[in-house]
Amino acid sequence: MTTPPTTTPPPAGQAAARAPQQDRSRATRRRLLEAAVECLAELGWNGSTVSVVAERAGVSRGAAQHHFPTREDLFTAAVEHVTAERLAAVRAHADELPAPGPRRTEAVVDMIVRLYTGPLFRAALHLWVAAATEEPLRERIVALENHVGRESHRAAVDFLGVDESTPGVRETVQATMDMARGLGLANLLTDDSARRAGVVRQWARVLDATLGTAG
Amino acid sequence: MTTPPTTTPPPAGQAAARAPQQDRSRATRRRLLEAAVECLAELGWNGSTVSVVAERAGVSRGAAQHHFPTREDLFTAAVEHVTAERLAAVRAHADELPAPGPRRTEAVVDMIVRLYTGPLFRAALHLWVAAATEEPLRERIVALENHVGRESHRAAVDFLGVDESTPGVRETVQATMDMARGLGLANLLTDDSARRAGVVRQWARVLDATLGTAG
Repeated sequence: MTTPPTTTPPPAGQAAARAPQQDRSRATRRRLLEAAVECLAELGWNGSTVSVVAERAGVSRGAAQHHFPTREDLFTAAVEHVTAERLAAVRAHADELPAPGPRRTEAVVDMIVRLYTGPLFRAALHLWVAAATEEPLRERIVALENHVGRESHRAAVDFLGVDESTPGVRETVQATMDMARGLGLANLLTDDSARRAGVVRQWARVLDATLGTAG
Repeated sequence: MTTPPTTTPPPAGQAAARAPQQDRSRATRRRLLEAAVECLAELGWNGSTVSVVAERAGVSRGAAQHHFPTREDLFTAAVEHVTAERLAAVRAHADELPAPGPRRTEAVVDMIVRLYTGPLFRAALHLWVAAATEEPLRERIVALENHVGRESHRAAVDFLGVDESTPGVRETVQATMDMARGLGLANLLTDDSARRAGVVRQWARVLDATLGTAG
């Protein structure tokens, strides 16, 4: 890893003013996106207005609307941004997974299931269910869901180290993602972690037997 | 099947008036419960008020409130009632399932998944997600979820004909129910039936290999 120099000579002329302003704008945008996911997870769609998010992010309502003209823009972008960050973080820590074998399989299933049982999934679930009855949201959430689903599926295939050209492998990985989604739903109202741990352990054994991931 | 006699002698005295009145009351209650599930599935929690349900059921608002004093009473009872009816219907048709073997396993997985991909699941999902942020609903939905989850799990064990005292069997059945729930969620905004058919088929093969249900 290369470390950035501790001091950078300031760029000359107009750029000097523009660069920090762009940084501030990016930081504001990021705070809004993160606050939006927190609000959705805690308050649901009804309680999550642009004003509530702006206040939590410490940003004026006007600034929030400059970045995201509509409520749908803000929340769709928020779930997309935080999901991309989470997937990137998971990929960045992939080298900490155990070597191929049963311990790796269980670690991968656990990692996938964690993606679906935290505040991000809770936020996405509120948005998803709202989209079922709110037309302006529906189309955007369908597109988001396709994109996120593809990325998550690809990550699972990479981490499990399986070959999707083998018949049944693709569907087994899909079933794993569906199960993770179901576990996320089961965790919405109560702490389901004890039951979930048993399901994850058993699922990993089933995958080892089905996909040959036991090594 | 025995057919009821076409004419029944009316019971004597007060009971004569009471019996048809009780029948009418039960029929009204039933219409309200069915209309409540339809409304929830189509309109979500926000759009499903007692008035909307009463109108759909062709019942006065006062009569609806006589049967169900609060909105929470009505919708919790509705999801419980329709789920019990669906499970009873599924059990009544159990003898139409193929004999034990791979065809039966796939038919059972398909049957479980159908429970989670129709309007009833959609209604339950709206109620479930509303309960995450509405305190008066939460406790009741947690109790409902426990009850329904237990009943569905028991039906799955019976239909698959597996023995839960064998290590891993209980968790494999739980994973199947979680997967079905995840498939339900995946079907909320788009028609997921083509992808789902592949997952169901593959999952049945995995169960046959894991549980020995191939016969």
